[in-house]
Amino acid sequence: MFEAAELGQTLSPQRYEAGLAKLRSRLLAAHLALRSRKFPVIIIVSGADGAGKGELVHRLNEWLDPRGVETHAFWEQSDEERERPPNWRFWRAMPGRGRIGIFFGSWYTAPIIRRVFGEIRDGEFDGALHRITVFEQMLADDGAVILKFWLHLSRKEQKKRLKKLEAAGRLGPDDWKHFKRYEKFTRISEHALRHTDTDAAPWKVIEAADRRYREFTAGTLLLNAIEQRLKAVAAKAVAAKPPVAKAAAAPAKVAPRQRRAGSSILAHVNLKQRLTDAEYAKKLEAAQSKLSKLAWVAREKQVSMVMVFEGWDAAGKGSAIRRVTQAMDPRLYRVVGIAAPTDEERAQHYLWRFWRHLPRAGLTTIFDRSWYGRVLVERVEGFAPEADWQRAYHEINDFEEQLGAHGIVINKFWVHISEDEQLRRFKERQGVAYKQYKITEEDWRNRAKWRPYQAAVDDLVARCSTDVAPWTLVAGNDKKFARVQIVETVVKRLEAAL
Amino acid sequence: MFEAAELGQTLSPQRYEAGLAKLRSRLLAAHLALRSRKFPVIIIVSGADGAGKGELVHRLNEWLDPRGVETHAFWEQSDEERERPPNWRFWRAMPGRGRIGIFFGSWYTAPIIRRVFGEIRDGEFDGALHRITVFEQMLADDGAVILKFWLHLSRKEQKKRLKKLEAAGRLGPDDWKHFKRYEKFTRISEHALRHTDTDAAPWKVIEAADRRYREFTAGTLLLNAIEQRLKAVAAKAVAAKPPVAKAAAAPAKVAPRQRRAGSSILAHVNLKQRLTDAEYAKKLEAAQSKLSKLAWVAREKQVSMVMVFEGWDAAGKGSAIRRVTQAMDPRLYRVVGIAAPTDEERAQHYLWRFWRHLPRAGLTTIFDRSWYGRVLVERVEGFAPEADWQRAYHEINDFEEQLGAHGIVINKFWVHISEDEQLRRFKERQGVAYKQYKITEEDWRNRAKWRPYQAAVDDLVARCSTDVAPWTLVAGNDKKFARVQIVETVVKRLEAAL
Repeated sequence: MFEAAELGQTLSPQRYEAGLAKLRSRLLAAHLALRSRKFPVIIIVSGADGAGKGELVHRLNEWLDPRGVETHAFWEQSDEERERPPNWRFWRAMPGRGRIGIFFGSWYTAPIIRRVFGEIRDGEFDGALHRITVFEQMLADDGAVILKFWLHLSRKEQKKRLKKLEAAGRLGPDDWKHFKRYEKFTRISEHALRHTDTDAAPWKVIEAADRRYREFTAGTLLLNAIEQRLKAVAAKAVAAKPPVAKAAAAPAKVAPRQRRAGSSILAHVNLKQRLTDAEYAKKLEAAQSKLSKLAWVAREKQVSMVMVFEGWDAAGKGSAIRRVTQAMDPRLYRVVGIAAPTDEERAQHYLWRFWRHLPRAGLTTIFDRSWYGRVLVERVEGFAPEADWQRAYHEINDFEEQLGAHGIVINKFWVHISEDEQLRRFKERQGVAYKQYKITEEDWRNRAKWRPYQAAVDDLVARCSTDVAPWTLVAGNDKKFARVQIVETVVKRLEAAL
Repeated sequence: MFEAAELGQTLSPQRYEAGLAKLRSRLLAAHLALRSRKFPVIIIVSGADGAGKGELVHRLNEWLDPRGVETHAFWEQSDEERERPPNWRFWRAMPGRGRIGIFFGSWYTAPIIRRVFGEIRDGEFDGALHRITVFEQMLADDGAVILKFWLHLSRKEQKKRLKKLEAAGRLGPDDWKHFKRYEKFTRISEHALRHTDTDAAPWKVIEAADRRYREFTAGTLLLNAIEQRLKAVAAKAVAAKPPVAKAAAAPAKVAPRQRRAGSSILAHVNLKQRLTDAEYAKKLEAAQSKLSKLAWVAREKQVSMVMVFEGWDAAGKGSAIRRVTQAMDPRLYRVVGIAAPTDEERAQHYLWRFWRHLPRAGLTTIFDRSWYGRVLVERVEGFAPEADWQRAYHEINDFEEQLGAHGIVINKFWVHISEDEQLRRFKERQGVAYKQYKITEEDWRNRAKWRPYQAAVDDLVARCSTDVAPWTLVAGNDKKFARVQIVETVVKRLEAAL
C-alpha cells in the first residue's frame, strides 16, 4: 500500500495558497453542518515518526471550528486505564455526535509497536487486527465517520526529517529507536493497514515528505468524507420522510420470534421452588459469609466483577442486589442504576455509558438494568429500529467478551416471576406507603406487553449466554429462594475465578 | 464532643420497628421531592473502625430511592488522582443537583490518618482543616446540604466489635493497626471535628454501639436535614415570587465599580506596541523553540501547566493559542473550549467542569475561555445573581491556589484590543468566507456592553491576580506583538518553575 506514497508528490506554495481559502471555507461549513446532523467524526492520525503527524494535528485544529473538535493523545496507560479492558481508554475519548475527535495514537499503536518489538506473534497480531475491524464497524454502524490517515515516509525521507527535528530540539523520545526498525515497522504497518482497510473505516495513506502536499491532501480527504456523509444523510432524510412519520405513529413492531408461552425458555424456570425461613436464614448467611471473604480476596488478587440485574417489574431485583451488597464492604462495589441517559450519554454510542462505569481492578460494578435495555425495552417499545437492536446482540457479545478477556467475572441475572405473582406484588406495593413510588403507570403498560417482552428475553438468553458471560434465570416467585440462588451463583463463579 | 456519644444509648427492636415504616416513607418522600428542588445532598460517613459505617451505608442505600443515590468509597489514590490536586478525586464524585452522594471516606480521611501516624504536625493539620471548611462552605453556598456523620465507639466497644467482625471474617485490612492508636485517633478526630463543625456543614456525632440506635438516628438526622431545606426552599420560592419575576425582566445590573475609561487598568496597556514582520518571525521562532524543549522537560519532571485565555471578541485568542500549541507536541497539551455546559455540568457546582479537565502530571490544559466566565459574562449579563459572582472571586482564588499548591504552573491572559480595532476586525471577518462564522449577533451585542465588561475585567484583575496565578494583560492591537508576548510569558514562567 505504501508504494503509491513514494512518488515524490509535492504542492507548490502557489497552488497551496490558491486552494487553501476554498478548502478552509468548505471544511468549516461542513464542520458546522455536521453539528446539526448529529454524527461523530473520528480521525486517526498515524504513520511514521517524523512524518508530520503533530503538525497535521495542529493544522486540522486550525482549520476546524475549535469549539467542535477535540484532540486526544494516548500515552502509556494510567493505572486506571490498565485496570480496565484495553478499549476503555478509547471509549473515554470518543467524540459525541456532531463533534470531531482527532486521535493522535489509537487502537493501532499498541498492536503495531508490540509486534515490531516482538512482544506478540503473527497470530495474536492478526487477532488484534480482527477485533479492531469489529470495533470500527460498530462505531460506523452507529453513524460515525471514521478516517484513518497514515502519513508515509520513505526510509531516506524519514532519516532526513528526524535529523532536522533533532536539530530543532523537537524529536520525540522514541524516534531514533523506532527508526532502527524502519523495514520491520513498515512491513508490519502495511500488514495492519491491509487487514483493516474496510468500507466502514478506510485507510488514507498520504505521502508525507512535503508539508503542503500532506496537509492539503488530508484536509481534502476529510472534507470529502464529511461532505459525502452530509449528502447521504440529507438524501435519506428527504427520501425517508413519509415512511418515517408513519413508522413513528405506528404501534411498536411485534418481535419476530414470538413463541407460544409454553415454548418460552422462561416456562422452564421452576417457579415453585421455595425456601422456609429457617433454610433461607441459614443458606443466605453461609453464602454471604463466603462472598464477604471472597470479595476481599478478589480485591487482593485484582479480580473485578460485573453483575447485571434484569427482570420483570417487581421481580425483586433491588432487594436481591441488596443481599449481594450487604455481604461486601461498601468500598468494594458500586451499584449503577440505569435510567434515562444524560445528554453526554445520549451523544454517544449506547455502550459508552456502560464502559464509563467499568470497575477498577479488584472492584465490582453492579448494573441495575443494563446494556440489555437495547434488546428489551428499546426493541419492544420500538425506540430502536430493528436493524439497531438486531445488531446489538453481536455488539453486546463482543463487549462482554472484552470484559471476560480482561479477567472480569461476569454474572447476569434475569429475575423471573409469573404474571400472577407480578399482579399480586403490584397490588401489595400500592398498599405500602414507602413502596408506592415503585409502581407507576409505566409498570402497568409494561405488564400489558408481557408476550413481546418474553420473546425478547428468549432471544437475549439464546443469543447472549456465553461461557464468559452466562445468563442465570432466577426463580423469583419466592423472594427468599431467588436471593439465595443469586448470592450462591455469585459465590460459585467468583470461587471458580479465584 | 464524644462524651455525649458514650451514654449507652440503644433502641429496642420494638421501638425500631414501630418507627421504621414512618421514617422510611418520609425519607423516601423527601428524597423524591429534592429531585425537583435541585439541590445535592452530600453525606459523609466516618468514624471509628468497626462502628458500622459500612452497614450504615448499606442501610441508607436501602432506605433511599436507588435511582437517586450514589455511594463513593475512596481507596488509595490512583495515579490519575495523584497527578492532580488532592480535591480532584472528590470533585469527580460530586453528586449532581437533585441527587444524594454518600461518601464513605472523604476529605477528612487523609489528614486524620496522616496526623495519627505522625506524617504531618499540628500546624499542617490545622491548615488542612481550614481548607476543608472553605471547601465545604463553597459547596454549601452552591446549595448543597452537607451532613457529616461520625460514628463513635468507646474503646471497649470498639474492641468488642472488632473481635466480632474478625470472627465473621469481615475485618478491614487496617482495623487492628488503627485500634492500637485508639486514644490518639480519638483525640485527633475530636480536634478535627471541633474545627470543622460549621453551620454550613455540621458534624453529627452518633453513638454507634447499638445498630438500631445508630441507624435510626442517622436516618432521622438525614430526614430532618432534607425536610428542613425543602421547607426553606419552598418558603423562599413563595416569598420571592414577585421580585424574582421582576428581576428577570429587568435589564442586567450595571457593575458597581464602573470607572471612567481612563481609570481602567486596561487603559494602561500600551496598545501601540508593534513588531515588524522580521522581528516577529525571529522572536516567535526563538520563543517557540524554547517552549518546545521546555514542554518535554516539564513532561519529564512531571510539571503541569494550566493556561487561561480570555479577552475581547476578535482579540485574537484563538490564533494566539495556536502559536503556543504549535510549539508543543500534541500529546503534551489539550485545548478545552468552554461553551455552553452539558446537562451533567449544569447539575454541578460551576467549578466542576474545570476540575474535570485538569491535566495529568507533566501535561498542559489550555482553557479557551474559563471559570472567569462567572465574573465576566455571567456578571455582566446578569446570568448569575450578584451574591454568586461576588463570591466567585474568592472561590476562584481558592481554586487556583490549590492548583498552585500542587505545583501547576498557571498563566492567565487577557488579550486586550481597543474598541476601534475590534470594529475593524469585525468588518474584516465579515469579508472572509471562512471567518464569517466567527461573527454573530452576540458579538455585536457584547460590543455594546464594552463599559460594563471593562469594569468586570478591572475587578477580576484586581482581585484574582495572585503570585501563583498572575494575570497578563496582552497588548493585542498588533497580533504579532500579542503572540510573542504570550509565548514569551509562558516560557518565562515555565523556566522559572523548572
